[in-house]
Amino acid sequence: MTLNLEAKKLLLRKIPHGLFICGVREGDEINGFTASWVTQGSFEPPLIVMAVRSEGSSHGIIQRTKQFSLNFLRADQKDLAAVFFKPQKGLGGRFEASPYRFGELGLPLLEDCIGNVECSLIGEVVHGDHSVFVGEVKEAYLNKDDDPLVLSDTGWTYGG
Amino acid sequence: MTLNLEAKKLLLRKIPHGLFICGVREGDEINGFTASWVTQGSFEPPLIVMAVRSEGSSHGIIQRTKQFSLNFLRADQKDLAAVFFKPQKGLGGRFEASPYRFGELGLPLLEDCIGNVECSLIGEVVHGDHSVFVGEVKEAYLNKDDDPLVLSDTGWTYGG
Repeated sequence: MTLNLEAKKLLLRKIPHGLFICGVREGDEINGFTASWVTQGSFEPPLIVMAVRSEGSSHGIIQRTKQFSLNFLRADQKDLAAVFFKPQKGLGGRFEASPYRFGELGLPLLEDCIGNVECSLIGEVVHGDHSVFVGEVKEAYLNKDDDPLVLSDTGWTYGG
Repeated sequence: MTLNLEAKKLLLRKIPHGLFICGVREGDEINGFTASWVTQGSFEPPLIVMAVRSEGSSHGIIQRTKQFSLNFLRADQKDLAAVFFKPQKGLGGRFEASPYRFGELGLPLLEDCIGNVECSLIGEVVHGDHSVFVGEVKEAYLNKDDDPLVLSDTGWTYGG
């Protein structure tokens, strides 16, 4: 039997996904991108799982530095998610769109969002056009509680 | 700096999650459990990522058989998700709650839901109280398209 591609696409698009900005840093260079394939991986230690496009420049930075931040966007921040989806001229350019600071682990954290976590990479599965990174939450910063940005509310699709 | 546990909990609970029934089989024994920490892991090959409680009996079955099914519940199937959350007397008892058949890979598939996929395990990260399993979608079966069951709509929390 051959995989039913239409059924596969329709079903995978039923998985609820959010929209987050992942931040990375290597020396003086920072970079960020919109991540959608994110889930929790464990309570203790607290683990976050995130799939990252293999061809993006942040992919190698995460593998080399073994850390990343995740910024939790509010429901009204679709425009910011769009900025971090777009191709960029040089690393880090997207962060000009919104104020940020550096966290305890030195990672870029957006100031205008629900909050941020900084994670240490503890495992990875490198197999497809995205790699699966598993990070332990080392620091967490709450800015202001609010409803999160959810992919299905944007009219965009990413998955299937 | 110590991890801010309250901020960590609040933020991780902002990650959108669904509710699915994962099915496993080892010889004549079948088992199933409600999975919530699920995300896509790659387009090509199509990968699904799922975190599974280390202490559950299905955890070892997935590791030994290297496959699992995922059943996509409709928005009105919260009660069925509750059945597959409950402790059970013996393996497989929860499947008495709803009709099922076996797929091409021999895994249990619920007949009354949006659809099902059968996955081959291609990688894992074993680190915390849940393990992260990455499966390649080998078969996909659509029963009837409908809105999926989403954790935030149930009033339950699982995460944080």
